[in-house]
Amino acid sequence: MMDVAAYAAPSAGAPLEKSTITRRDVGEHDVLIDIEFAGICHSDIHTVRNEWGAQQYPLTPGHEIVGRVTEVGSGVSRHQVGDLVGVGCMVNSCQECAACEEGLEQYCLAGNIGTYGAVDKDGTITQGGYSTHVVVDEKFVVRVPESLDEAAVTPLLCAGITLYSPLRHWGVTEGTKVAIIGMGGLGHVGVKIASAMGAEVTVLSHSDKKREDAATFGAQHYVNTTDEDEMKALAGTFDLIINTVSVNLPMADYLALLRYDGTLVELGAPSKPLEVPAFALIPARKALAGSCIGGIAETQEMLDFCAEHDITAEIELIDADRINEAYDRVVASDVRYRFVIDAKTF
Amino acid sequence: MMDVAAYAAPSAGAPLEKSTITRRDVGEHDVLIDIEFAGICHSDIHTVRNEWGAQQYPLTPGHEIVGRVTEVGSGVSRHQVGDLVGVGCMVNSCQECAACEEGLEQYCLAGNIGTYGAVDKDGTITQGGYSTHVVVDEKFVVRVPESLDEAAVTPLLCAGITLYSPLRHWGVTEGTKVAIIGMGGLGHVGVKIASAMGAEVTVLSHSDKKREDAATFGAQHYVNTTDEDEMKALAGTFDLIINTVSVNLPMADYLALLRYDGTLVELGAPSKPLEVPAFALIPARKALAGSCIGGIAETQEMLDFCAEHDITAEIELIDADRINEAYDRVVASDVRYRFVIDAKTF
Repeated sequence: MMDVAAYAAPSAGAPLEKSTITRRDVGEHDVLIDIEFAGICHSDIHTVRNEWGAQQYPLTPGHEIVGRVTEVGSGVSRHQVGDLVGVGCMVNSCQECAACEEGLEQYCLAGNIGTYGAVDKDGTITQGGYSTHVVVDEKFVVRVPESLDEAAVTPLLCAGITLYSPLRHWGVTEGTKVAIIGMGGLGHVGVKIASAMGAEVTVLSHSDKKREDAATFGAQHYVNTTDEDEMKALAGTFDLIINTVSVNLPMADYLALLRYDGTLVELGAPSKPLEVPAFALIPARKALAGSCIGGIAETQEMLDFCAEHDITAEIELIDADRINEAYDRVVASDVRYRFVIDAKTF
Repeated sequence: MMDVAAYAAPSAGAPLEKSTITRRDVGEHDVLIDIEFAGICHSDIHTVRNEWGAQQYPLTPGHEIVGRVTEVGSGVSRHQVGDLVGVGCMVNSCQECAACEEGLEQYCLAGNIGTYGAVDKDGTITQGGYSTHVVVDEKFVVRVPESLDEAAVTPLLCAGITLYSPLRHWGVTEGTKVAIIGMGGLGHVGVKIASAMGAEVTVLSHSDKKREDAATFGAQHYVNTTDEDEMKALAGTFDLIINTVSVNLPMADYLALLRYDGTLVELGAPSKPLEVPAFALIPARKALAGSCIGGIAETQEMLDFCAEHDITAEIELIDADRINEAYDRVVASDVRYRFVIDAKTF
């Protein structure tokens, strides 16, 4: 057991504060990671503010982690001391159900074990990446390509895989017409990845603020969703729409933008149920689907893809004492595009 | 032009009455069909009662048609005089858009031309199969296997393809776990077809009335949806759920029955939007989709499949003067399982 520096929320909704947490001893199949960077995801905020159900406090969030391996268990074969590695939203799963066998650990039938706030196999509550060190089963640790900026690669561990997985699953390739609703932390990475896959990417945003950025990231088109005429002109256009915005959009209007056999994928969950007229789906075999991060092998594939295409997130690097300010700015959508914390400052 | 006997609704909601309608001359690519049987679909009732939007009256419904070819145009190559043939829900489409090129005429980008109540290429309003004769473009006429009972094969032209297409599209094969919600005109044919495809079929019905029939049609399981314990035990079970019931079901409860990567397909459109919590889709990459009949080539494939597996609908054969009574019984779900009209009685 080792005590390590961290930031934690002492109670629901309270500001995060400097703290100490305990990491388990390095087991046979574990690696110890000296964390270098930890990303801030909007989910962190929802979770520490108890907006997604009751949590045990104090709680250290963080599920975008990049660092160096400093110790490995006797049975570890995938990673060596010195390797640059990453950890995303999961630190374990049953590893034996049908979903795990398929490499879909995120859909583990026993439930995957989240990087923080989840009951681990030893009965303790997992604590996340806002910390100097973490001990993780080697199977849930991925290699981070050395060619990419270490801080800017960090958000790919959640935002990157969350977009990469549905883009791959729904067959995005050269010429696929993809729309991405919302260009924040998730969306901006989605634009870069979809564009690198060869898709014709349209950003659907509720303002003009990010029009220039979108082009820089590889989007061919940018539509302000408040322009009703422009929206109507998009009817029947897209093979795939990915919604990164957790608000209750008028679903019929957005489903109308799909081509026949098109799919709209929800990544965020608004508070109220989506209202979906069946007639918005039936006459052109459309689908509304959900998608949740990606499997471990797929996360590795995503990082290798990003290295090949030189893709990282746009980030603002901060010290740990600015986490609470950063949280407020994330809630106010005032970040371009993702905060990453320098782990030296925990 | 020829005047032929038919049954028509003189105005919205009025009882159907004996009538005469005009069929066009047999064009170069047309076939004239001497109708033998016409099925009654619930859509016929919705349409003549103006429940699905304004119609022009008088209107002759009917989009499940089986008969013999009695005349062919000079350019017809697919059918010969004497052939047993069928016509389903479409009598034409643009035949040149991407969807038509793919054999998905039902999703024609210009809109397919419905068998009744639609504006035909010559500007007239199409009139359906409750009639002694019909003239149809040969491409929208399919061969009916002689081995099947002619009256009982008739509902396959709508009910059969409406189930066959999603079962095929979503990859049903040996061992696929399929649930069919509702075992009426559509559902009972779906049970037979899915079962013949090798699926493990479960019928979800709101009563026990059809339990024995379901087993006869090939279902392995039958669950009364009012039994909460039985429903809960099905959580995470199905690869595919097909909803044939046009009512607002509690979607979260039904989506919970899907396995990861499973799809729930809506065939009927309830009056109010479906309420879909995003969290019912996201954590296991589930989808809610719609599906509408099937393409012409796929309709032919369905009929050939049904001939191979000796599948027809369960029907009550009636004379034309019982159409209005039959309509009331369909609305009351009092038919096992589909009414077919003997065209000699029009």
